[in-house]
Amino acid sequence: MDFARRIQRVCRMFAGHRIDAMLISSLRNIYYLSSFSGSTAQVVLTRDVPLFLTDFRYYERFAEEVHPGYELVPFYQESLGAKLRELSRKHGFKRLGVEAEHVSVAQLEEMRENAGIEIVPLKGVVENLRAVKDAEEVAAIRKAVRLNEEVFLELLKLVKPEVTEADLAAEYEYRIRKRGAEAASFPPLIAFGMNSSKPHAAVSRQQMMPAMPLTFDLGVSLNGYCSDMTRTVFYGGVSQGWEEIFNIVREAKDAASESARPGVSCQEVDRVARSIIEGKGYDVYRVDSEERKYFGHGLGHGVGLEVHEAPRLNARSTDTLKKGMVVTIEPGIYLPGQGGIRLEDMYLVEEQGLSNLNTLSTDIIVVP
Amino acid sequence: MDFARRIQRVCRMFAGHRIDAMLISSLRNIYYLSSFSGSTAQVVLTRDVPLFLTDFRYYERFAEEVHPGYELVPFYQESLGAKLRELSRKHGFKRLGVEAEHVSVAQLEEMRENAGIEIVPLKGVVENLRAVKDAEEVAAIRKAVRLNEEVFLELLKLVKPEVTEADLAAEYEYRIRKRGAEAASFPPLIAFGMNSSKPHAAVSRQQMMPAMPLTFDLGVSLNGYCSDMTRTVFYGGVSQGWEEIFNIVREAKDAASESARPGVSCQEVDRVARSIIEGKGYDVYRVDSEERKYFGHGLGHGVGLEVHEAPRLNARSTDTLKKGMVVTIEPGIYLPGQGGIRLEDMYLVEEQGLSNLNTLSTDIIVVP
Repeated sequence: MDFARRIQRVCRMFAGHRIDAMLISSLRNIYYLSSFSGSTAQVVLTRDVPLFLTDFRYYERFAEEVHPGYELVPFYQESLGAKLRELSRKHGFKRLGVEAEHVSVAQLEEMRENAGIEIVPLKGVVENLRAVKDAEEVAAIRKAVRLNEEVFLELLKLVKPEVTEADLAAEYEYRIRKRGAEAASFPPLIAFGMNSSKPHAAVSRQQMMPAMPLTFDLGVSLNGYCSDMTRTVFYGGVSQGWEEIFNIVREAKDAASESARPGVSCQEVDRVARSIIEGKGYDVYRVDSEERKYFGHGLGHGVGLEVHEAPRLNARSTDTLKKGMVVTIEPGIYLPGQGGIRLEDMYLVEEQGLSNLNTLSTDIIVVP
Repeated sequence: MDFARRIQRVCRMFAGHRIDAMLISSLRNIYYLSSFSGSTAQVVLTRDVPLFLTDFRYYERFAEEVHPGYELVPFYQESLGAKLRELSRKHGFKRLGVEAEHVSVAQLEEMRENAGIEIVPLKGVVENLRAVKDAEEVAAIRKAVRLNEEVFLELLKLVKPEVTEADLAAEYEYRIRKRGAEAASFPPLIAFGMNSSKPHAAVSRQQMMPAMPLTFDLGVSLNGYCSDMTRTVFYGGVSQGWEEIFNIVREAKDAASESARPGVSCQEVDRVARSIIEGKGYDVYRVDSEERKYFGHGLGHGVGLEVHEAPRLNARSTDTLKKGMVVTIEPGIYLPGQGGIRLEDMYLVEEQGLSNLNTLSTDIIVVP
């Protein structure tokens, strides 16, 4: 990855934001700019040299994995404000940009008290760069997608009457690690039967129920890059009712992905899927006096170093698709107390439209 | 767990902070106050009723696991500030406390723009309650400690010439889940040979090296509560040099734990361990012109719903031990490029002093 170029792209924005240095606090953004994979660091990009603040525990990892352009600044259990004061004098900066989404109110207060320079909260500086992936990043994401698919296919072979959601989650975590993933990109969502009506069900000791949906929403982090895929399959058969709902969800997914290309608003892509689902009668139902939606969540999101990142595909999004973005499309229909269907693939936004990064079909699967 | 009492304890602080409602944003604090284990929620404690803001994906989980005193407030992709304005009118609050450590600068700005009420950042409100554990919490922590120890003993049996750090990490994650843990409380630190010189080494494909230290720093999250234990063992034999260092670390750990009791400052406990290690000559060394410490990290930290929480045991801590706190004591000596030794147990602060929650000895272990 070309870290020097990424650092440069941030520094080129200094003038526009009227700053002369930028503090990066998000560990994902630090990874993007340096390749550091540890859990404690701060980066200060200055006009002359990028500075890497970390502690004792990570000095050796700094030497091994951080982009060599950085200068190590030992920093442990000290005031960040006081350290910034010292660095501002040494490197001659006076207006420091900070990440408004990643600096807490308490941290900002401490910096303003002790740094003796102007602190300028800015939004999405690195995230906006990250939303558009380069070829190396897309290649890394493809590997994460493949690994996830391979392990999903293995899980299907393990579906048996006595197996529980928690058993499959443990198998999933084990198998992705044995294949080289750092971790799951989110806690595996494996929902049998009625549990599948909850888009984010907790993994339980629930066992299989015949002819009911089993939802697998799975993703890995491999070399920092994430994957995210959902398949709903059926155990021991599929009823006509569920098959109909499955086909509506698939139709919504396909229509949304075909409608998307650079320049199209993320809101519009969400609308395409939603209008198909609502048009088939899966709009709203009532619980007591309150209206709830059968498809109550957004259509999708960007994926990269984080499993949820820019852009957002939902009814309130103000994002627009750009070439090089990687997004999920994941419509669903959930019948409370009965079960639910969701299908999700990851797509690369290319000049002509979306290209599917997943390789598995969305045909109905009945296990075993 | 007595959620009603915990909520009450927060509400009783309203007058002292001159607020009439409190927004809780930290998911760990929300779990502490409600038992909710999902990934998206906000809680607003008001004088009349505690409000639980979450979205579609979690309505069923709200009904299943959240303390029944809460009222559900559907909230999805909206402005938090606008929602607070609406709630402030309905429930009659005008000065809302927020968690300064868990609200970002961007979130505070959005609330101040749209809520139309006064927003008061406060520090450590729920964390200070959480630092002192009740009997049920200690029982939950003991279970997490035991599960961790059992799986650690299993891992020792798997140490073989061809096994890698990553293999053992995958085995660890699998086995803790099969025994009911939600997840590891932090990514397992398993460091063979020279890697053990890095207190937070990345798990690698490194294989065994004879007569070198193997460090296992492991913890689980079980029913929300964490454990954290470190053992350094030796593969195929132990040299006299490493045995000496091992014994110094053990002496430092024992002396620190014996010095601790309610009312003793956390700084003092850190000093006891540090002075033993430094007194044996493991004070500082030089890399180029820069001084570095052989024991460069703090002595320990509180453990509960988070694996690192209040209090902090280090040279800059201003915390004091209280009855009911649960803390780690984990001194180490690290020889750069050679290896390192660390030992860590978890302790409950009782009237008379610390009681060790771990049950495994700290005698030298040679595997296989």
